[in-house]
Amino acid sequence: MKAMVLSSGGIDSTTCLGIAVEKYGKEQVAALSVFYGQKHDKELQASDAVARYYGVEHETIDLSAFFLHSNCSLLKHSDQQIPQEAYAEQLKSTDGKPVSTYVPFRNGLFLAAAASIALSKGCDVIYYGAHADDAAGNAYPDCSSAFHKAMTDAVFIGSGEQLKLEAPFVGMTKAEVVKTGLSIGVPYHLTWSCYEGEDRPCGVCGTCIDRAEAFRLNGIADPAAREV
Amino acid sequence: MKAMVLSSGGIDSTTCLGIAVEKYGKEQVAALSVFYGQKHDKELQASDAVARYYGVEHETIDLSAFFLHSNCSLLKHSDQQIPQEAYAEQLKSTDGKPVSTYVPFRNGLFLAAAASIALSKGCDVIYYGAHADDAAGNAYPDCSSAFHKAMTDAVFIGSGEQLKLEAPFVGMTKAEVVKTGLSIGVPYHLTWSCYEGEDRPCGVCGTCIDRAEAFRLNGIADPAAREV
Repeated sequence: MKAMVLSSGGIDSTTCLGIAVEKYGKEQVAALSVFYGQKHDKELQASDAVARYYGVEHETIDLSAFFLHSNCSLLKHSDQQIPQEAYAEQLKSTDGKPVSTYVPFRNGLFLAAAASIALSKGCDVIYYGAHADDAAGNAYPDCSSAFHKAMTDAVFIGSGEQLKLEAPFVGMTKAEVVKTGLSIGVPYHLTWSCYEGEDRPCGVCGTCIDRAEAFRLNGIADPAAREV
Repeated sequence: MKAMVLSSGGIDSTTCLGIAVEKYGKEQVAALSVFYGQKHDKELQASDAVARYYGVEHETIDLSAFFLHSNCSLLKHSDQQIPQEAYAEQLKSTDGKPVSTYVPFRNGLFLAAAASIALSKGCDVIYYGAHADDAAGNAYPDCSSAFHKAMTDAVFIGSGEQLKLEAPFVGMTKAEVVKTGLSIGVPYHLTWSCYEGEDRPCGVCGTCIDRAEAFRLNGIADPAAREV
């Protein structure tokens, strides 16, 4: 196995998976999904569907125990409501801190767990879908290019120079991610982004707003929103 | 809660715990231990005893699922024997790679999991016991000062500048760690280091050899070796 891809079933990580399969071939790519205590499993269903579409090995791990003490609004045990507005609006009232849907050091923990598994499987690269819109204004500090650089160094050095991280979209907007994905035929109709777990995307949470805008800027309707 | 300390029940992390308790007081310190699939639970018993000695909150988490695919010789499911020689000897035949007791990205994963928990508990610093002898010759690359610097940056940036790492011994030898610990009365008689899980330390694995030497250089016998 060559490459591991963190796959959440959303736009960004599915595009990452498409890129990795293009580059290495499906036999050399493993997808890794994470249950972290989120309110619903729609995104895990989506990551399953995406992995089947690409024909890659797929494993889901459980990291929920490490967020039991967190009151992040994405978590099932939280008493916080998921905000119904764009991240830019939310950031006006966080006093410089991350938004309420920031799961404590989530990307750091996901990447570290992926690194331990990837090393055991002989992979030498991990892909993940951090992009610039999520990092803007410190909404999700573990999506920033500064975090990516530091975590890449930590994984490379801490693995005895056996493993690298790749975040191909860390300097891109979500619209640019979608543009990239459309050019390689990423199956966006199989993806799920909404933080709520209803039959259809709510359309008003931060990630629904971002997703709709990314497709609008590419001049097409969101294929998932029509089919769920 | 102010500080979290990664506690393995060995010399280095127990000295870290002593330092944190001296600095912040026992009410502000939480110890965190990890089951990762190791061959025995002697070190977890030791970390329990140490936490009780200091009167600090103590939690043990299970990260063994992430090492199921690894054949590291410390793991219960591995078919590799634990080497019976010093690290310097072992490194002569690893071709620049870590020793066989290197658990894939172990410190990275332990620190990332600690970071997620520490943020939820409102801690702003995590202590861990990496020291220079373990990093020498790339035996354990996730104990090096370069790893520490990168991981500290990753945690600080990825947490939205809410959390720091401290590795007070990263530039010290194990003998210097013991010297520090002796000066603040660390209960070394409660600690366990041996990679094997017999009634008494084997005396011939890499960590037994290092431990004995650290006490010898301080001019005293190992208190644990007499009492187990």
